[in-house]
Amino acid sequence: MIDIDVNPYKADFPLLAGKPDIAFLDSGATAQRPACVLDAQRAFYETMNANPLRGLYSLSVEATEAIAKVRSQIAALIGAVDDRGRAQANDIVFSRNASESLNLVAKSFAPLVLKPGDEVAITIMEHHSNLIPWQQACAAAGAKLVYLYPTPEGVLTDEEIAEKIGPATKIVAAVHVSNVLGVVNPIENLAKAAHDNGAYLVVDAAQSIPHMPIDVRELGADFIAFSAHKAFGPMGIGVLWGRHELLEQMPPMLTGGEMIESVTEQGAVWAPVPEKFEAGTQDAAGIYATGAAFDYLVNTVGYDAVREREEALIAYAMDQLKSLPYIHIIGSLNPADHHGVISFNVEGIHPHDVSSILDMSGVCIRAGHHCAQPLLAWLHCENLACCRASFAFYNDKSDIDRLIAGLKAVWSTFHPGE
Amino acid sequence: MIDIDVNPYKADFPLLAGKPDIAFLDSGATAQRPACVLDAQRAFYETMNANPLRGLYSLSVEATEAIAKVRSQIAALIGAVDDRGRAQANDIVFSRNASESLNLVAKSFAPLVLKPGDEVAITIMEHHSNLIPWQQACAAAGAKLVYLYPTPEGVLTDEEIAEKIGPATKIVAAVHVSNVLGVVNPIENLAKAAHDNGAYLVVDAAQSIPHMPIDVRELGADFIAFSAHKAFGPMGIGVLWGRHELLEQMPPMLTGGEMIESVTEQGAVWAPVPEKFEAGTQDAAGIYATGAAFDYLVNTVGYDAVREREEALIAYAMDQLKSLPYIHIIGSLNPADHHGVISFNVEGIHPHDVSSILDMSGVCIRAGHHCAQPLLAWLHCENLACCRASFAFYNDKSDIDRLIAGLKAVWSTFHPGE
Repeated sequence: MIDIDVNPYKADFPLLAGKPDIAFLDSGATAQRPACVLDAQRAFYETMNANPLRGLYSLSVEATEAIAKVRSQIAALIGAVDDRGRAQANDIVFSRNASESLNLVAKSFAPLVLKPGDEVAITIMEHHSNLIPWQQACAAAGAKLVYLYPTPEGVLTDEEIAEKIGPATKIVAAVHVSNVLGVVNPIENLAKAAHDNGAYLVVDAAQSIPHMPIDVRELGADFIAFSAHKAFGPMGIGVLWGRHELLEQMPPMLTGGEMIESVTEQGAVWAPVPEKFEAGTQDAAGIYATGAAFDYLVNTVGYDAVREREEALIAYAMDQLKSLPYIHIIGSLNPADHHGVISFNVEGIHPHDVSSILDMSGVCIRAGHHCAQPLLAWLHCENLACCRASFAFYNDKSDIDRLIAGLKAVWSTFHPGE
Repeated sequence: MIDIDVNPYKADFPLLAGKPDIAFLDSGATAQRPACVLDAQRAFYETMNANPLRGLYSLSVEATEAIAKVRSQIAALIGAVDDRGRAQANDIVFSRNASESLNLVAKSFAPLVLKPGDEVAITIMEHHSNLIPWQQACAAAGAKLVYLYPTPEGVLTDEEIAEKIGPATKIVAAVHVSNVLGVVNPIENLAKAAHDNGAYLVVDAAQSIPHMPIDVRELGADFIAFSAHKAFGPMGIGVLWGRHELLEQMPPMLTGGEMIESVTEQGAVWAPVPEKFEAGTQDAAGIYATGAAFDYLVNTVGYDAVREREEALIAYAMDQLKSLPYIHIIGSLNPADHHGVISFNVEGIHPHDVSSILDMSGVCIRAGHHCAQPLLAWLHCENLACCRASFAFYNDKSDIDRLIAGLKAVWSTFHPGE
C-alpha cells in the first residue's frame, strides 16, 4: 500500500518545490512540469536550435532528427505500431493542443464521410473541444448531432450505445476520461458499435494519458487526440494519431511552409503525412520537451506507480469529502470511478466563492463550467458551475488535508457560529 | 560608423556563445534566442504556471495577467493604439505561427468578402504561407488569384500596382520584406491602391519585424501577421493583428475551450475578440517569453542599433560576395535593398552542395526553395533552388569572412587546380 504522506516526486517539480505553501489541485487544467522537461526545452534552444526540415547544415539536421525521434517515441507509447512492432511515427501529427487535433479531424476528415441526414454521435460528457467542432461539422454537412447520456453514476450502458449508434452514424466522438466526472468511458464498446455500423471513432484522450497507458489497438480508435501540457509536458503541443489510410485521404486544414511537395502560381501538391498537416514552423523545442515529459512519466515514474498513488489519493480525498455533510460529489460515489478528478459543490455556495476562499489558504482548484456546459446543464448544476479538484501523482496527503481544511473554512465563512 | 568586428551581442545568446565555431547565417528561418527569453519561458513554468483564463486562484490569475500584459506590449509595439495612444490589446490574436495567422485571415475573413469573379492580388514574392492560403480561398470562392511582379531589382512599380489592383480586387496580400530578395515592399502604396478600390490589405511581416519597427497605422494594413521565433522569441507563437471591426465580423477558425460565451447541446455563442480565435490552452509560457523577446529587441538592443549594424553587415557581405566572380546575387545589387537577406547561387553548383560543404566549416546557410517556389520559378532559378545567407544584429564580420572562405572552398572543391 502506497504511503501518500511521503512524496518522492514534488522535488522534481520546481514550481511545487518552490511554493510549498500551495496545494495544486488543478492538474486537470494544466499540469506542472518536472525540471527535466524545462531542461530539455532549454537544451534544444541552447544546443540544437534551428528550423527542422528546412536546413541542410548539421544544426538543422540535428533538430530534424530530434523531432523524428519524439514522433517515434509517441507512436510506440500509444501502440501505433505495425505488425512487426515498429513504431508508425508518420501517423503522429503535432498540433498546438488537443483542441486543434480534434478540429483537424472535424474539419478535414468529417466532410469526407458526412452527408445530409447522417449522424455524428458524441457523449454529453465531452469537453467543448470535442463538441463544438462536431456541431460545426454537422452544420456544414447537414448532419445531425446525437448525444449519448450516461447513468447518474456516469456509465454509458450497452443499451444507450445500441440506441444511439446505428446505420445513420458516420462518426462517434468520445472522451476517454471525463474532465468533470473522472469516469473512464467504454471506448472498446463504442469502437465496436461504431465499426459494426461502418462509422469511425474519434477519442479525446487529453484527460486519460496523464493517468493511464493508451493503446490505440486495444481501444479500437480511428483517431486519438491529446495534449502535452496536461501530461507534464510544455504548453503549445498537441498530438493527433490517426489510422494511416484515413490521414492520407484528408486534405490539410492549414497551408503554408513545409507542408507541400510543390507549389506553382495556381496550385500546390501536398507533402505526405504527417508534414501535410504541419504548416509553418513547428515548436520544435516544445516537441523535444514533450519527448522528455513522456520519458519522465513512463520511464522515471511509470504508469503503475501513477495508478497506485492516484488511487490512494482519490480514495482518501473521497473519504474526507464524504465526511463533510455540505459537500455534494458529482457523479459516482465510488472512488474507483474517478480518474484524476473529483467534482463537487458546496451546498448553497457558488463555486467561484469556494475557489476564491480556498485560494486564500493556497489551495488551487478550478471552479466554473470546465468547458463542459452541456454536461453541467444535463447534471442540473446551478449556474452551470461546479468545483473540481484534480490530481496527479505529485500530489500528497497534505494537499488533500489542506483542501478539506479549506472547505471547512469556506463553510464557516458562510455559516459563522455553526 | 559601426564596427562589425566587435560583437557586443553574441554573449547574450547561449547557442552562439556555446558554439563559437559556427557562423549562423540562417536567422531568416529561425533566429537564436537570448538567455533572457529562455529565462522568461522557464520562469513562467517555475513561478506562475497555471492555465490562464481558466482558474480563479492567484497562480492562474497571475498567468492570465502576464498574457494580457504581453498582448498590450505587442499592440503598443506595432502601433495598434487608439486616438489617445492606448494599446488595443484585444486586437492582438495569438496563434501558433505566422502561417496560422495568415490561414485565419484566408479561412475566416476571405469568405466574407470574396464572391465568384472577384480577385485576390498577391505578389510573386510571397512565402508559401501567404500564397497557398489564397489559392485555397480563391478556389473556395470561385475567385481569381492575380500576381504582382516586381522589376528585376525587386521593385513593385506604381504601374504594376495600378494594373493589378482594381475594382475586381477584394483582398491584397503582400509580404513586407521578401524572405528571398530581402527587399522592402511599398506597403503604403499597396494599401492606398487596395483601399481606393474597396479592398483589404493583409501584410506578412514575418521577415520585417526582426529588422525594423512596424506601425500598422503608417503601413495602412488591415491585417498583419508575424511570428515570435524569427524575432528572437520562442517557437510556437504567432501573432495576428487585425482591424477590430474586421476581427469582430470573422467567425472562429478553430473551436473548443475558452473561445465561447456559452454552449448548449446544439449551438454555441462565441466569446469576444481575441478569445474567439484562441481555442484550447494557449502556450502561455511561450507568450510570456515572446514579451521578453520583444522587450530585448526593442529596449535592450533597439531597432536603431539593429538597422545600423545590419546595414554594415549587409554592405560588407555584398562587397565580399561581389568579389567572387562565380557568385550570382539574386535580386538587387544594391546593399540598401537587402534587409536581413542575401540570396545567391554559385555558378554551376547545386545549392544543396554549397550548403553541405559550407556546413563542414560550420557555416549555416539555407539552400532550397525557401518556401517560395513560384518566386524561384519566376526568377528562373535552376532546380527551383538557391542559397540564402540571412543576418541578425548578433552576426559579425567573422561570420561573413567564414562564409566567404567557405564559398572559396566550395568553388575549389568543384574546380580543383583553379
